[in-house]
Amino acid sequence: MALMDISVIPLDGGRSSYSGFVAELQTILEGSGCRYRLNDMATTVEGSAQKLFELALKLHEHSFQAGGKRVYTVMKIDDRRDRSVKLGEKVDSVMGKVGSGGQ
Amino acid sequence: MALMDISVIPLDGGRSSYSGFVAELQTILEGSGCRYRLNDMATTVEGSAQKLFELALKLHEHSFQAGGKRVYTVMKIDDRRDRSVKLGEKVDSVMGKVGSGGQ
Amino acid sequence: MALMDISVIPLDGGRSSYSGFVAELQTILEGSGCRYRLNDMATTVEGSAQKLFELALKLHEHSFQAGGKRVYTVMKIDDRRDRSVKLGEKVDSVMGKVGSGGQ
Amino acid sequence: MALMDISVIPLDGGRSSYSGFVAELQTILEGSGCRYRLNDMATTVEGSAQKLFELALKLHEHSFQAGGKRVYTVMKIDDRRDRSVKLGEKVDSVMGKVGSGGQ
Repeated sequence: MALMDISVIPLDGGRSSYSGFVAELQTILEGSGCRYRLNDMATTVEGSAQKLFELALKLHEHSFQAGGKRVYTVMKIDDRRDRSVKLGEKVDSVMGKVGSGGQ
Repeated sequence: MALMDISVIPLDGGRSSYSGFVAELQTILEGSGCRYRLNDMATTVEGSAQKLFELALKLHEHSFQAGGKRVYTVMKIDDRRDRSVKLGEKVDSVMGKVGSGGQ
Repeated sequence: MALMDISVIPLDGGRSSYSGFVAELQTILEGSGCRYRLNDMATTVEGSAQKLFELALKLHEHSFQAGGKRVYTVMKIDDRRDRSVKLGEKVDSVMGKVGSGGQ
Repeated sequence: MALMDISVIPLDGGRSSYSGFVAELQTILEGSGCRYRLNDMATTVEGSAQKLFELALKLHEHSFQAGGKRVYTVMKIDDRRDRSVKLGEKVDSVMGKVGSGGQ
């Protein structure tokens, strides 16, 4: 399982805020069946690599379906196959170590 | 004010987990005086562009001070000068719109 | 048409060089039928969004097929539908403006 | 020595082309004394981490000095201290291996 961090940025100009657009993307994320978490700079999604790349395409395409002419999508995928990876796990793991003095 | 999303990845090999390393970076973040939030794929930090780039260098350098030989740092900065930008604000704004039907 | 910038980074450790791995990816790129150009930090590929995301998945998966356990893939896609986008075009356009004094 | 890959994207809207803006950035790059190479999706620069982060701030700030209100900068730095890293070296290394059958 992998985690994907994705930011979809419409470059059409004229939009003073992206929050309405990002809210629309939440509907697609809900429909994907994947667990996800929104932060200020990206959305993190948990899933198999195949599922994540398919979802990334859908999120990227959404802006054009809404009339957009140019979209810039930035993403990174951290994928490990030696053990399962769950959303929230990394933060919990780091926090546990910070709590015990970062050791 | 700007928001920075930063991931610092030691490429030395041999580490089976990054969580101990990320926990060390929290100490540098605490010392910066900037507000920040950790997620599974990156840390988001709020500050002026100058402060953020200086902090990025410190986070990047930390791995070498700990004996590392190769580091890969990925970051993005969303900076607007027409109004203030606060950590957590974007998520709140999107959630407000999702709550009202994504309009 | 869109341009994708992709970097696939095996995080297994033990590799002292990525160049052999990147050379293997060239075979997949050749087979895709897409035009592409390698630079020091990424490979840039020209194609439709659908084709590019499918290719990204293949490049990302290659490392696991070769026995890898963890892969980190970073990519960005600049996609415009109001006109065609060709590999090399942006550099040519910038260079033309630099040549005339950046105006 | 390290290599940085940087893309500075003005999000003000209204610009139909970034090539004029990217041409302006070339002047800052020239003045930095660092070796650099432009590609379609980013500019790659060779230098010490400190120099590269300072340069990144200058490139990022340029848009605001020209009247911009919002800038989105994406960058990645691959930094190794066990040996020198030169611009063009990675591409040459990969091409040498592709030439010999990618082995």
